[in-house]
Amino acid sequence: MSLKLFELVGTDTTRPFSPFCWRTRMALAHKGLAAETIPWCFTEKQAIAPHQSDKVPVLLDGGTSVADSWKIANYLEDHYPDRPSLFGGEGGRAMARMINWWGDVTVVGGMFPLIVADIPGHLKPEDSAYFRQSREARLGKSLEAAMAERDTSVEGFRRALDPMGLTLKTQPYLGGAAPNYADYIVFGGFQWARVVSPFKLLAENDLVHAWRERLLDAFDGMARKSPGYHV
Amino acid sequence: MSLKLFELVGTDTTRPFSPFCWRTRMALAHKGLAAETIPWCFTEKQAIAPHQSDKVPVLLDGGTSVADSWKIANYLEDHYPDRPSLFGGEGGRAMARMINWWGDVTVVGGMFPLIVADIPGHLKPEDSAYFRQSREARLGKSLEAAMAERDTSVEGFRRALDPMGLTLKTQPYLGGAAPNYADYIVFGGFQWARVVSPFKLLAENDLVHAWRERLLDAFDGMARKSPGYHV
Repeated sequence: MSLKLFELVGTDTTRPFSPFCWRTRMALAHKGLAAETIPWCFTEKQAIAPHQSDKVPVLLDGGTSVADSWKIANYLEDHYPDRPSLFGGEGGRAMARMINWWGDVTVVGGMFPLIVADIPGHLKPEDSAYFRQSREARLGKSLEAAMAERDTSVEGFRRALDPMGLTLKTQPYLGGAAPNYADYIVFGGFQWARVVSPFKLLAENDLVHAWRERLLDAFDGMARKSPGYHV
Repeated sequence: MSLKLFELVGTDTTRPFSPFCWRTRMALAHKGLAAETIPWCFTEKQAIAPHQSDKVPVLLDGGTSVADSWKIANYLEDHYPDRPSLFGGEGGRAMARMINWWGDVTVVGGMFPLIVADIPGHLKPEDSAYFRQSREARLGKSLEAAMAERDTSVEGFRRALDPMGLTLKTQPYLGGAAPNYADYIVFGGFQWARVVSPFKLLAENDLVHAWRERLLDAFDGMARKSPGYHV
C-alpha cells in the first residue's frame, strides 16, 4: 500500500489548506490510512494534468489516481471496506451526497467572503496573482471589498449553520455518537479557514464551536497540530 | 397491529395538511403499514393531551403513543425492522437528523411566508382565528403582509434548495436510487404547500420539481390522490 495525496499549500509547505483536501485528510485518518503529502500550488496545473484533473485533492493509490474529494471518499469506502466506514451504510452514503453539497454551498461558500482577502498573504507571488485574478472575476469585486463587511455579515453565515447547530443539541457529531464523513465535509471548511485567517467565524458559546474543538482533537490532534490561527 | 394517526385537517377532513403529518404518512407507506386517520384540528388540544403532546402527528400503536414526526420515524424503524428501512443504516439515521432540521428551517421555514395567508381559508372559524393569532405573533406582521412579496421572494427560497437540486443531478432521490426518509422529510413540506396553496413554489425545469412529481406518484399515487392544488 502506497498512498500519496496532492494537497494545496502556499509558501509554507507544512500548512496545507483547501477545504476539500482537509476532507480527504480526515477521511484517510478515519480509515487508518497514511498518505505521503505532495505539496501543490495553484499554478502547478501541469503536475496533476496526468491525473485528469486541474484541482486538488488528487489521491494516488499504487497505479490508480482519483481526483475530487467526494470521489476519493467513495473510493476509500469501496476499496478499504474492512476499515471503519465513512458513511455508516448506503443510506448514509446517499445522504452524505446532499450534506456534501450543503458543505460546498452553505459552509465553504458562506465562509469564502469572510476570509478570502486573508489568503493571498500565504501564497507565492505567482499563485497570489492567479488567486486574486480568478477569485475577483468570480466575485465581481476586489477580495478586500468582498470581505469589508465581515464583522456584520458573519451573522448571516452563523444563522445558515442552524440546521447543524440544532442537530448537535441531541448528538455530538453529524455522524451520530462518533464522527464520520458528514463531519469531515463541514470540518474541512473550518480547517481551511483556521489555516489561512485569524477571523473568528464562530461564537464561543455555539455548539458548532464545541464540535469543531472535538474534531481538532480527533486522530491525536492531527488538525490542531497543523499550523493555523487559534480561532 | 392497530395503528392510528392523528393528522391535521381543516374544514375538509379528507385533506390532511401539515408537513410533519405528511412525513409520517409517507414513512408509514414506506414501511407498508396502514394506519387509520383520526382527523384533528388546531384547537382540539384536549384530544391529544392524553398522549403528552399539543401537536400532531401523534401515532397510536396498540397501547403505545408516539408524538413528533422525527420520533415516530425512529419508532417505526426500531419496531418494524423487518420492513424496508427508512434510513438505510445507522449512518443514514444520524445524517437524517440534520436533513430533518434542514427540512424544518430551510424547506418548511422557507415556504411558510410564501403560502401562509392561503391557509386560513381552509380552516374552521375557531381554528382560523387561532392560526392567525399565533402565526402573526410569530411573524410580527399580518399573514398577508408576510406573503405580499412572494412573487419575488420565492427566488430566495429556490436558491436555498440548491444543495438538494445539485444532489439530484447524480441520484434520483436524496436516499439514493430509491426514496427513503430523507426524501419524505422534504416532500412533507411540498405536500403541505400543495394541499393549501395554489402558489407555484418551483419552476417546472427544476430538478426538485421532477423529484416532487416522482414522490407524488409513489405508493400508487398516495400523495397525488389527496385533495390539493395542481402545482
